Parts: sequence; C-alpha cells; structure tokens
Amino acid sequence: MNTFGENLKLTIFGESHGEAVGMVLDGFPAGESIDIDFMKEELKRRAPGMSELSTPRTEPDEPIIISGIADGHSTGAPICAIIRNTNTRSSDYHPEKPRPGHADLTAQIKYKGFADYRGGGTFSGRLTAAMVMAGALCKQTLGRRDISIEARIVRIGSAEASRPDFDFALRKEILDARASGDSVGGVIECAATGLPAGLGGLMFGGMESRIAAALYAIPGVKGVEFGAGFEIAKMRGSEANDPIRLEDGRLFTETNNSGGINGGLTNGMPVVVRCAFRPTPSIAREQRTVDLSKMENTTLRISGRHDPCIVPRAVPVVESMIAFCVMDALCGD
Amino acid sequence: MNTFGENLKLTIFGESHGEAVGMVLDGFPAGESIDIDFMKEELKRRAPGMSELSTPRTEPDEPIIISGIADGHSTGAPICAIIRNTNTRSSDYHPEKPRPGHADLTAQIKYKGFADYRGGGTFSGRLTAAMVMAGALCKQTLGRRDISIEARIVRIGSAEASRPDFDFALRKEILDARASGDSVGGVIECAATGLPAGLGGLMFGGMESRIAAALYAIPGVKGVEFGAGFEIAKMRGSEANDPIRLEDGRLFTETNNSGGINGGLTNGMPVVVRCAFRPTPSIAREQRTVDLSKMENTTLRISGRHDPCIVPRAVPVVESMIAFCVMDALCGD
Amino acid sequence: MNTFGENLKLTIFGESHGEAVGMVLDGFPAGESIDIDFMKEELKRRAPGMSELSTPRTEPDEPIIISGIADGHSTGAPICAIIRNTNTRSSDYHPEKPRPGHADLTAQIKYKGFADYRGGGTFSGRLTAAMVMAGALCKQTLGRRDISIEARIVRIGSAEASRPDFDFALRKEILDARASGDSVGGVIECAATGLPAGLGGLMFGGMESRIAAALYAIPGVKGVEFGAGFEIAKMRGSEANDPIRLEDGRLFTETNNSGGINGGLTNGMPVVVRCAFRPTPSIAREQRTVDLSKMENTTLRISGRHDPCIVPRAVPVVESMIAFCVMDALCGD
Amino acid sequence: MNTFGENLKLTIFGESHGEAVGMVLDGFPAGESIDIDFMKEELKRRAPGMSELSTPRTEPDEPIIISGIADGHSTGAPICAIIRNTNTRSSDYHPEKPRPGHADLTAQIKYKGFADYRGGGTFSGRLTAAMVMAGALCKQTLGRRDISIEARIVRIGSAEASRPDFDFALRKEILDARASGDSVGGVIECAATGLPAGLGGLMFGGMESRIAAALYAIPGVKGVEFGAGFEIAKMRGSEANDPIRLEDGRLFTETNNSGGINGGLTNGMPVVVRCAFRPTPSIAREQRTVDLSKMENTTLRISGRHDPCIVPRAVPVVESMIAFCVMDALCGD
Repeated sequence: MNTFGENLKLTIFGESHGEAVGMVLDGFPAGESIDIDFMKEELKRRAPGMSELSTPRTEPDEPIIISGIADGHSTGAPICAIIRNTNTRSSDYHPEKPRPGHADLTAQIKYKGFADYRGGGTFSGRLTAAMVMAGALCKQTLGRRDISIEARIVRIGSAEASRPDFDFALRKEILDARASGDSVGGVIECAATGLPAGLGGLMFGGMESRIAAALYAIPGVKGVEFGAGFEIAKMRGSEANDPIRLEDGRLFTETNNSGGINGGLTNGMPVVVRCAFRPTPSIAREQRTVDLSKMENTTLRISGRHDPCIVPRAVPVVESMIAFCVMDALCGD
Repeated sequence: MNTFGENLKLTIFGESHGEAVGMVLDGFPAGESIDIDFMKEELKRRAPGMSELSTPRTEPDEPIIISGIADGHSTGAPICAIIRNTNTRSSDYHPEKPRPGHADLTAQIKYKGFADYRGGGTFSGRLTAAMVMAGALCKQTLGRRDISIEARIVRIGSAEASRPDFDFALRKEILDARASGDSVGGVIECAATGLPAGLGGLMFGGMESRIAAALYAIPGVKGVEFGAGFEIAKMRGSEANDPIRLEDGRLFTETNNSGGINGGLTNGMPVVVRCAFRPTPSIAREQRTVDLSKMENTTLRISGRHDPCIVPRAVPVVESMIAFCVMDALCGD
Repeated sequence: MNTFGENLKLTIFGESHGEAVGMVLDGFPAGESIDIDFMKEELKRRAPGMSELSTPRTEPDEPIIISGIADGHSTGAPICAIIRNTNTRSSDYHPEKPRPGHADLTAQIKYKGFADYRGGGTFSGRLTAAMVMAGALCKQTLGRRDISIEARIVRIGSAEASRPDFDFALRKEILDARASGDSVGGVIECAATGLPAGLGGLMFGGMESRIAAALYAIPGVKGVEFGAGFEIAKMRGSEANDPIRLEDGRLFTETNNSGGINGGLTNGMPVVVRCAFRPTPSIAREQRTVDLSKMENTTLRISGRHDPCIVPRAVPVVESMIAFCVMDALCGD
Repeated sequence: MNTFGENLKLTIFGESHGEAVGMVLDGFPAGESIDIDFMKEELKRRAPGMSELSTPRTEPDEPIIISGIADGHSTGAPICAIIRNTNTRSSDYHPEKPRPGHADLTAQIKYKGFADYRGGGTFSGRLTAAMVMAGALCKQTLGRRDISIEARIVRIGSAEASRPDFDFALRKEILDARASGDSVGGVIECAATGLPAGLGGLMFGGMESRIAAALYAIPGVKGVEFGAGFEIAKMRGSEANDPIRLEDGRLFTETNNSGGINGGLTNGMPVVVRCAFRPTPSIAREQRTVDLSKMENTTLRISGRHDPCIVPRAVPVVESMIAFCVMDALCGD
C-alpha cells in the first residue's frame, strides 16, 4: 500500500506523466513552523539538470501546499502537497517492449495492461520528489529538537569513499558510464544523530524494520544494512558487541556496530544505515528483451535522456525517508 | 507494533520466561489442510540442543492450537497457537548490568524498568518459535501451490559457502568460537521459487519493503539484500539489467540480479534474499558495561549456557518470515 | 486517522478555506472504466445553491484528477482527485467565540490554537465533497456488478417519510426553520442491493463496524442503525429473527430485521442503514457561548449564509460512504 | 479484521468449542499496576448462570495471563490472556439447518463450510469474554486517571428505564420471554466521565467512528447512537446546540445533546452512547429455515439451553469496548 507509518501516515501518489505527484502527511503535530523555502531547497537537491552528472531535463519541482499549513504553521490537519508535471516526452517509451531492470513487465502483469507506462508511471523516480516534500517537513521539526539526518555517497561503482580522491573518482565513474551509453550504481550512508534512546517498538515495529521498509520503497534500492551490516557476519561476538560506557553521566557505546539500534530500539548512538542502489536501468545500449505484442525475442534501444547515475540525486531522498521514520517514532512516544 | 501484514495479519506475543510464546494469524483462508506434525518438524529445526553446535538447553516446543483449526483444516477464524515455556533459569540474568549488544539497556529505557528482563523477555530469540509456527502454516499452503521457500547458510564468520569444504569450515568456526568463550555471526540466503509474477504492491507495499521489515523483526539481523544486493552498486547497468527472454511461451530473465523483484512486484523468477546475523551477544568472555544501580563503569561475565552461533537455528525462521510475506501477498491477489 | 479501509484505502484531506479539498483512493482495481461526468453529477447532488432549500453560496466543485486515471480507466496506482476552494468569506468566523455544536472549541484544544478555523477548516462539511468523489468511483464499478446504493430522506424534523405528503412536509420543516433563523435535522436511509452473501469479516471487520465508522466520519451524524435498528430492542426473538427460505434455488429471508447482515457478514438481502443528522449548528439566532480571549460568558450571532438543513445535500454523501465500504469488502474477496 | 485500534491494538481470537478464547492487547503502556482479581470480577459480571435471568450453563471463565504482565505490572510487551473452554455440548447444533438471525448461513458461505460451527464458533457471544479481559485492563488504568466508564440497561423489550418500576418490569420481560420459549432485546447506555477535552481525531479517527466500530463488533448490536442520538433529528438547531458556559474557570455545556463529542473530538463532557441489542436469536420455538443438505424448506427447533436475554450480561462488554476506545485515544495523546 502507498500509505506508511505508525503514528504519522505518509501517502504517496502520482504518475510521472500525469497531472502531478504528491503526498499526504497525516498525524503531523499542529503548531510546527514550516519554511516552504527549505522544502524547495531540498527538492533542488533531488532535481535533475543540476550538474553535468545528471539528465539535462529540467523540471521546476515547485511545491503547492494543498492543505494542512496555514500562516506558516502546521494546522494538525493532513498536509497535502503536490508538484505539477510539466516536462514530459511520452514518445520516448515503448510499453510493448519492457525495459530490462524496470517495472514495465511486472506492472503490465499486475495491472492488466492498464498501468500508465508513460515515463515509468507510478514506478518513476519522479515520485521520490513526494518523499522529499515529506522529509523536508519532518527535518525542520527534527532540527528544532537537535536531531540531524545526513546522508552521503560512500560508493559509486568501483570508487569507494575511503579513497582520498573519492570526489574525482566518483565523477569519473559517472562520466565514463555516460560516455559508454551505460549507467552505474552506488551506496548511500545516512546517519541520524541526536536521537533519544528508546525510540521504536517491538518485533515488526523495530526501527530497523521501519527504516528498511521505507528505504526499499525508493526505486532502485537492493540492499539495506545497519551499523556494521553484512560485515558483522564475519565478526566474533567479542568484536561485534559494543561496550557500554558511562562518562560525565552520559551512557554511550565505545563502538557502534549495532548502528544505534538494539532490539529494534534506539540506544542513543547515531543510527547508521547504508543502502545500495542499482545502476539506472535506462541505458542507451542495445538490450535483449521481448516484444509482448508479437511474443518474440527482440532487442531494445532506449532513446530518451536518462541519468547515468541516480545516486547523487537520491541522497536527499534517503535522508527524507529516514527523517520520516524518526519523526513517526517520536510521534508515538 | 507486533502485528504485521497487509492481508494476513501476524501478531506475536510472549516473553521467554513467561507462561508461553505464541502467535495469532488472522486472515488465513478457510479450508486449508493443516498438518501439525509438519509444524513440529519445523519447530525442531529451530530448537536448541539438536546438535553439538548449539546450546544444550532442551525445550520441548510443543505447539498448542488455541483456535482457528478444527478437524485438520483452517476454519477462517484467527489461528492462535502457543508454546509453553518450561526450562527457565532466571538466575542467569542481571538487569542492572545491561549486556552489550543486547536490548537490556534500550528496553529498560523504553519500558521504564518494567520490562520482563528474565531471559531477554520479549526480545528473546525464543519468540522466533512463534514465527516458525506461522511459517509452517503458510508453507503448507504454499507447497500445495508449488511454491517452495528454502534457506541455507552462505557464511559463518570467515567461512563462505563458495568453499568446497564449507560444511567443515562452518563447524570449525562455530566450535572455535565456543572454545574461546565467544560467538560468531553469519549470512543466510533464502530463495522463494514458483511465485506468480505480479505479486506485491506499490511503494511501501513492494515485496522488498515487506520482506525486509519481516526479516528485521528477527533478533540479530543487521543486513538484508535482494538479488545481487550490495554488489549491484559496483555494476554497470548493462551488467546489472536482467535481459528478458521468451522460451517455450514462458517469460524469464537470463540473470537474476534483481532477485525476482522489479518495482516491488515479483517477476516470476526466484525471489532471492540474504540476511546478515550478528554474532550472539551473549558470550562467556568478560565485557565492559555499566552498573545502572551504582551508575559506574564495570565489567560483566555472563554465566548462562548460550549458543555460540544462532545462524543454524535461524534458517527455518528466515524461511518462515518469507513464507508469511509471500502468503500475505498471495492473499491480496 | 484520515485513512480508512481494509483493502481499499481512502485518505481525505483539505480545509474549507485552504487551496483545495481532496482524496486519495488506494487499492482501486486497475482497468475500471471511469466516467468523470458521473462524478460531476454526484458532486452536483451535494453542492449548495441547487435549490431554495440550501445556502445560496455557489461553489463550482470541479474535480481535478491528479493521478490514477488515464485514458478513461483506472491505472491501479492511487487515484488522487481534488476540488479547488473558490468562494470563501473568511470574515464570517470568530475563532475566539466557539460556535455551540461545532468543533471550534474541541479543535482549538486539540490543535493548540493552530487549527485553520476559517469556514470550519478541516471539520467543514465541504470535505464531504471528497467523500463523494471516492463514492462516485466506487459506484460506477459496483453498478457494473449490478450492485446499487440508494439513499433517501426518511425524516426531517417532525416530518416522517411514512406521511403521504412527506415532500411537502419536508419543505415546510426546512423553510420554517430558515424563516425563524434556525435549522433542522433529519434521518437518511440507505439500501445497498445486489450484494453477494459473505461480504465482510469477523469482529471489528464486520460490515456494521465498517459502515458505522465510515458514516460517523460525516459531520453531524449522531446515530447509525441497521435493519430494524433500535426498534429491534423492543422485539421478541420470534419476531426479530428473519425466517430463512428457499425459492427457485435462491436463499432469502422473509423479513429483513437484520438489515442484510448476520455476524458481520452480508446475507444476500439488501443492506439497510439509517443515520441521524443533527440540525446544522450554524444558526442565525443568538446563542450562549464563551469568549476565550477574555474568558467570560458571552453570546454569539453568526452572520454567514448557512444551510437551514444539510440533510438533502448529505444523501449522496451517505451513499458514497456505503459504496466505499461495499467496494472495500468486495476487493478483499 | 480481528485487530482493532490506532495506538493500542486489540486482537481477539477463539471459538466457543475450541481450546480457548483470548485476546492480545498490544501497545499497553509499561508499568501499569494490574489486579487480576478485578479482571475476574468483571468476567463474573458477564458470566452465564449468575442469576435466574440467564442460561444455567456455568463456565468458570478463569483468565490465564500468557504474556505482558510480570510482578503485577504491565511489561510493555503485548498482553495475551486466554480463558479455556470447558463446558461444551456440541450435539446441540445442526450446521445443515442454519438458525435464523444467527451467522450460521453467512459463515458457511464465507468460510466454504470450514467454519467451526459448534456453539456458534467464532461468532459466539463467548468471545465477548475476551473483550471483557481487555476492558478490565483498560478500566484499571483509566480509573487511576479518574476516568470512569459505566453502563446500565435503559430498555428491555417494552420496559424503559424511565419507569419507576423498571427493575421489576425488566425481570418480567425476561421471565415472560423465557416462559414462552422466546427471547427479548434491549438497550444499554454507557457514560464515560472524566475524559480530557480533545481526545480523538479527524474524519474516520473521530471518537464516534471508533466507538461505533468497537460496539458493532459485539454480537447482536443493531444500533449505536451518541448524545441525543436519533432524537436529535427531530430537533431544531437552537434546541440541539449545547450552549457553552464558563463557571469557576471551567468550560462546560449546559446540555449534552452532542454526547460529549464535537467534530469527533471529546469536549470534556461525559461521552454518552447507547446501543441496541437484538433479542437472542436462539429460541426454543419452532422456526422456519432451510435444510442446506437437502436444499428444501424446513423448520428448526433449537434444544440447547440459551439466555432469554443477553442484555444484562452485555453491560460489562459495552463498558469494555468503550474503555478500550478511550484508552486507545489517550495512548495517542
């Protein structure tokens, strides 16, 4: 379902070539000061065409507040905001030849041929703009409680953030991919700091369950890990366990292999999450696929303008989803 | 919250030293033939004391059906089943000294000191027995629809499944860890085969979101990835995209980097998931922690009998959670 | 919460003097033919200014489809539709003097003074236009399955539908109320016919629980009853029980005191519901209230133009909520 | 679905002739003192065989706490409690001849003949014992916050509470019904006092929607109204509106036609609800029904021992459902 959250409910709607994409954020506390300019800044971080590294399409991404905000404050009623779709070139898409790695084929089966395929429809990365609007609202409130949510790229293709020349290597990976009509994936790491201990819930209500579910709603995510993540499987308990210490009356752990979460509950250390993005499936190279109208094997060459790497634009989206999850948990406490 | 699922609802309850652990499975279709012996077999796979690799505690894990099954069939009413707790040695636990890596400290904060700490309480791995009961019900129905859910260990500590002597190396890792009063982590991979294409939903209702949320409810899971997972971040699009092919009227993909899911919807290929387990936090070695009653740094030595590695016992638990997610998705179609 | 439904999810948002009111309908099946003109007709039935019996305000109530419908069919993605607010006279309202019978005071307490009070804000009857948009979508699909949902007024003030001159008496009650600067309440009865037997669920998922919850979301509803309703409390079992009969291979009941529902499940007979509406609280007469800024008793005279009776305009709203509940139940079968 | 609530989640399970009936209450705050004797007292109020007015069956109704309570306090984990079924005479039931007014026929259709029909199965009034267990937990916590929930019978058949000899008339109605092999219905009124203003939520989250949904889950309820209820439809606005007043710094309304709720939010006045119960469908008289195995019209005479009136036993059930709804709303504030 398109509605998510326990205490806050986030509903996302829209199709990339329909009237607009948008969201409803329900349960947001009344009286929170809202700065729409901050929302616009966050949307710019996600927008295409901001650098040579992304697609040249330019969408204004102007948020329109439909409800829930008056006189610069949240009213307590559901907040609805939309962004109109303006720059659409629907001739670029061929629904009868499903694009490998995309939802074209699965959507056609699920929705009996009635899905709006233009531009990826409801599976388009464009819907992440709605996530960013919700995240911008949550981040402002969290910021006033001294909680910060910050993400950064830690891998693009073979370039890792541990390299001293990571910025250069990252650019090279993306530009090389574009030059060869290809695309490249990456990993984003996000840290949420300033959280109180005890946020979250039992079982399926644990912070890891909620955050993972939220991140996997972002198109292209194929892995989510917390703290030491998959590396923890290689460790011994004596190495993985984070020793608990007390200093100046403050409890903390010496290491943070748990990623700030024990038993689904925050422990007061930064919540650290990493998520892996697949390379953008839309590439200029010829690909093998099937012609569903003729039911025969064929090839496909996608002509539209596409990002060689969506990871840079996904950074504010990852922050937004985590900000939502943190705000949701705070609203239940 | 302890209730999970869209069309099927799974509620898990219990504490390791209370009366029982159990589950309610609501929305399960009427008329499904239920074999309780199969449930007992599945519980045995999870039970401790089954081999030299696990803790010698022996719990009978006898399921008691409270409701929802009559004359060997599901009735359509909620299915409740419990397992009594019998073998409890509560003197092994010291709530005032939180165990590193455990939920002791976070639970104390969250539940204001009222959590039932004995044996890990509601955070205990013992609650995974309730997951296995639910999974056993789902697996039987799925099996009749030719859907199989099978998991296996692909890593224990430094031993990887790709090694020809993996079985030997796995045992050695676990026995070495035990010998040194330590524990070791691992990775489980699960494949769900025979799924129809089109299962799942949009956004937060995507199969990856649901499965990840379910797996992160298992104590000790710190990473979840699908298909190529984190490796996909290193790939180019031309390598990561799974070419779509047609053979004998059947659509399939040549590779399965997507792990059987595109846009949150199954594509008919096996759904492949891996999850990383941390080493059991309960180890015999001395560990640094804090005495909460005196509010001073101290050390802790845990004397109880504990698994040096929970990964072997977690295999049916992972299968159960994925079986539940698949059955839940099928019930909505 | 503003999201409702088990299989279909309806989210309603908006404030009467904000940008727009609207709804998101999620889970609606793909491929359903949608006639927007029918939606406009339904909105007209709810619109003010359609006769001498209602307020002279004229709002165009033009639905704008934001997502989920393309080429005249539902796409399977969430359907969002909004109606812009145009005719707003915010000077008519005095938040510091809460109107008796309204949510002014309770909203002020709940939302700490940040609720958007203009025109009733999110408590305004204007949000029922969003319900009607959702209902219009459901009714079309139900109609194609030979299910009809029809409501009618059965009481206005002291005039009951059993009177031969009910139409005349109804008009007289409303015009008398208006002439005296007052308002009047009424009762609407709705019948859903053509339903298959077995719709609904157990306990809180029963059809009565769902329909009652939906109807009580309509502003002004103070009573909901099914079949014989409160009259059944006066009956003996031998009179209240509906004898089950078989004729031409079709099961039916001789009477319908159960209102088409037994044990929360439809029995194939028409589902019959009645709901009581309070008189519109906004009346021209002087009323006793409190000045919250001065914290002293005072009186209030509301000067805006208001409906003397909202019951006629509520007929399509009641139908819409019941159509939604039926469609929701059908989607789960 | 059998799970209900926004912040607290109540799951009810069981069948009258299965192992037990029970409930899981999730989200209940940690650290609440729990008196199991109070729960037993509440169960006694609901138990059969307590007076000449009810069925002579005697069920001990001994609650067994499975989880969530330790050392006399709630632990924060889900509270599960069950009551074993002991006194069952399954020979009294004939599934092939559905009992008029019961769920026999609808359950058979819904659950394809697999429902556990013995004793009404999951539709049995026996499941209300699970509601009372949940209510007993909520009432204790509410009581400590000076919130009381008290229900009383206001009608049995033709006897109304306004009569000076109501107690006598009530007994006479019930004993007359029994003497003639019949049953009789009634109305229960419940008042929740001491509630803070502002409890509840918008739209479908309003207190009336929640309480009505909860009450309609009680078998036999056919009407639910708040405050003046259906009578308000006969009133003018000037009569129905409750004037707001201030006295000794305390806001209140002079009348309570709104039943303590405006716009779905509590206003600080007592929440007043009435619900109508149908006469018990199980009566000794011969009734017309259909033999489903032969598919022919027939008659049925039910031989079991049945309550001539369930209304007296339903009083604590109504209180329990309202206590749950109030506690649920409080947990969200």
